[in-house]
Amino acid sequence: MADSEDQNQPTGERLIYDLNSAPDPSSGSGNDLVGNLLVAQSGGPTAVINASVAGVIQEAGRHLDNIEEIYGGLNGIYGILHENLIDLNEEKARSIEELKHTPGAALGTCRYKIQFQKDPEQAAKDMDRLFEVFEAHNIRYFFYAGGNDSQDTNNKVHLEAQKRGYALRCIGVPKTIDNDLPHTDHTPGFGSVIKYNATTVMEIAQDVSAMATDDGSCCIVEVMGRAAGWIAAGTVLAKGGNADNAPHIILLPELPLDEEAFLAKVKETSERLGYCIVVVGEGVKNAEGQEIGADKTKLDSFGHPVLSGAADALAEVVQGKLNLKTRTVKLGYAQRCAAHYASKTDVDEAVACGTAAVKAAVEGKSGFMVTLERASKKPYEFTTCLHTLADIALVERTIPDDWISEDGWLPNQQFIDYAAPLIEGEPTVPTEGGLPKFAQLNKVVVDKKLPPRA
Amino acid sequence: MADSEDQNQPTGERLIYDLNSAPDPSSGSGNDLVGNLLVAQSGGPTAVINASVAGVIQEAGRHLDNIEEIYGGLNGIYGILHENLIDLNEEKARSIEELKHTPGAALGTCRYKIQFQKDPEQAAKDMDRLFEVFEAHNIRYFFYAGGNDSQDTNNKVHLEAQKRGYALRCIGVPKTIDNDLPHTDHTPGFGSVIKYNATTVMEIAQDVSAMATDDGSCCIVEVMGRAAGWIAAGTVLAKGGNADNAPHIILLPELPLDEEAFLAKVKETSERLGYCIVVVGEGVKNAEGQEIGADKTKLDSFGHPVLSGAADALAEVVQGKLNLKTRTVKLGYAQRCAAHYASKTDVDEAVACGTAAVKAAVEGKSGFMVTLERASKKPYEFTTCLHTLADIALVERTIPDDWISEDGWLPNQQFIDYAAPLIEGEPTVPTEGGLPKFAQLNKVVVDKKLPPRA
Repeated sequence: MADSEDQNQPTGERLIYDLNSAPDPSSGSGNDLVGNLLVAQSGGPTAVINASVAGVIQEAGRHLDNIEEIYGGLNGIYGILHENLIDLNEEKARSIEELKHTPGAALGTCRYKIQFQKDPEQAAKDMDRLFEVFEAHNIRYFFYAGGNDSQDTNNKVHLEAQKRGYALRCIGVPKTIDNDLPHTDHTPGFGSVIKYNATTVMEIAQDVSAMATDDGSCCIVEVMGRAAGWIAAGTVLAKGGNADNAPHIILLPELPLDEEAFLAKVKETSERLGYCIVVVGEGVKNAEGQEIGADKTKLDSFGHPVLSGAADALAEVVQGKLNLKTRTVKLGYAQRCAAHYASKTDVDEAVACGTAAVKAAVEGKSGFMVTLERASKKPYEFTTCLHTLADIALVERTIPDDWISEDGWLPNQQFIDYAAPLIEGEPTVPTEGGLPKFAQLNKVVVDKKLPPRA
Repeated sequence: MADSEDQNQPTGERLIYDLNSAPDPSSGSGNDLVGNLLVAQSGGPTAVINASVAGVIQEAGRHLDNIEEIYGGLNGIYGILHENLIDLNEEKARSIEELKHTPGAALGTCRYKIQFQKDPEQAAKDMDRLFEVFEAHNIRYFFYAGGNDSQDTNNKVHLEAQKRGYALRCIGVPKTIDNDLPHTDHTPGFGSVIKYNATTVMEIAQDVSAMATDDGSCCIVEVMGRAAGWIAAGTVLAKGGNADNAPHIILLPELPLDEEAFLAKVKETSERLGYCIVVVGEGVKNAEGQEIGADKTKLDSFGHPVLSGAADALAEVVQGKLNLKTRTVKLGYAQRCAAHYASKTDVDEAVACGTAAVKAAVEGKSGFMVTLERASKKPYEFTTCLHTLADIALVERTIPDDWISEDGWLPNQQFIDYAAPLIEGEPTVPTEGGLPKFAQLNKVVVDKKLPPRA
């Protein structure tokens, strides 16, 4: 068994994995690994991470020769360590379909990490426990949907399985609104967040421009994005190709803020148009490299500083130095769960990533993450590929320098051409009493077979 | 002429004005007032104030015997004083229809007031100028869409016309997300803002509840509402009748905040459910009557303090005293312009208010505002009425005490029965490239006939 697993060691290479192509002849036939499937979610939820889970579940149902039970791990690796599993075959087919337009993480998520470097003793205990759970429930197919940190965990599980000679097919399902995973054209979740944010900027511009009279006004919209400005950059689509349309300034975490130049740009814009809409990524830094909205006293459970006040910090400067009426909008969590206005392209791709993960695993692959590749630019078409997890874990991809205008205020046409297809289409989201209707899972618990986690 | 206008003096009485009923025999026939129409918008925009303007324009086109030109005043009374008028008959019929799903204020808006008490000299000048503009352009039908302050201006214009013996039919079109106008069941704009906010709360709850692990977490969503908590209260619809669903606490400006009881409620909720979603109206006050989020140093142009930080102020308390991970969302302008998820009921009613205003004016009425009345509770049906402007100006309607639960944390079933029908239905909003498509007015300028405003 160890031999067959060795074939799946990271190669640093990309495998084209087109869902529409014939099965890979090198591995597809003769897969004799039979057992149960475990799917779990990790990190911050998105509008479409449940769509990926739906893709996993629906595809798993087509491989009864290899996959017996379909389990969900509650709250990611954290819940799995506590043996908190549910039986997804007990869910209604309708509920699984409804997951495709249900935001949040239906299985629950976590930010727990197996920290080999920080706490090797606990990490070793965690790994022992994890494989006890896998063994107790005959888990042979493991799918972890998440971003950088989560794919690192996923890679560690994959390597540990190899070390132990435990037959496990371990495939990562990409997920992050941040769009900062390497080796994939983009990530599921990104298209929906920028569609919602761009729409919001367009609507706010209608509002603020209508109010503008003699004095002018400014609105600063804060969006997510700690190290990478993909989300902030995505709002450039609101301009619709018209230079005078909002947003007029997009502040990216990649570029240090030059306060004087920023104020001059706000002044020039509001004098010319009567108003100015600024989008700011929460992680924007000053010339000294300090985040302008960071409260250094608060850290999240990964040890990153909690950011909150970039827009308010900027508003104080604009209102104070330009004497311009300035209001802020902080979309916060609202932007990453806005399934009511998700991108249909994003939903479809999220489902496809789940589907591809199961197909790859059944074909014998392990230690990869599904990636998205642009098969055609116009008309836009995507295909799924696989890339070794080791190359993806903990690597953050930022916006290429040459995708930003020379003056630094806006992403340029290269970025627009890249992002525009990702927001296309609106899924039909059922409503009840004027509000969206979400999937309600029964969450039938799988009987525990182990003593509680120490 | 003065005689016929006298009939329209405020009576303090309500007139049933059903759009579907036969014309009022006492005034409908024999209307010999022929001239031009002027429609303008005032105060903060909403998702549907343009729908009301569309209603005015489309109905005006059916009364060619009385209404010759259809003009729009740019930026409300402020622009009219500057003789900034556009010819709405030059707009495409398609653009007028598109106004029904275009947020903001297509004609521009203002917060300018004619301030008889504060500056009687300027007010007298303004009135002289206003009637010069009216006379120069033969304005005989005037429609002002706005909230409390704007209807006060409207009433002053109506009274001034009577005083001067200038034949003018002056009808107010209700508009405010705040839902705080008296003598109307509700106001256009309210249904859409609470639909969007309730949807956002549902989506955020999916997100936050998925993240909840051992420690629990809290999210505080700040919504608009200075004196009245209608908007905050409306998010109760997100519960869908399930007591455990979000929002778990709604803080209304009507009730002073008891910090200790609030913290106890957050603690109890997050311990029981693993998370707690709080909605706070921006104008919430402490026991001393001070707004907890007010920055007293900033005033808007009506002299009201600018509120911004209620959610952040509460988050500091929750995070500090309960050591509970707490995040904030501040929807700000985004909530009042979210046409992409407006209430179809609200859009339809906004159009009907514009329609009713024109019908009433053509029938000879003046000095009234159109109101909405609930013709039937189940199934919900509305009718339009008229109420004298004098009773509406500057009066703020707050939530009835007996519509709030005894413990004060949530609106009760009476409120829910009231609000639920107002968010029903989703209009079809056209998109282009995955983003909403808004009306683009040509704004053909009407030639000025007067010297510039002094």
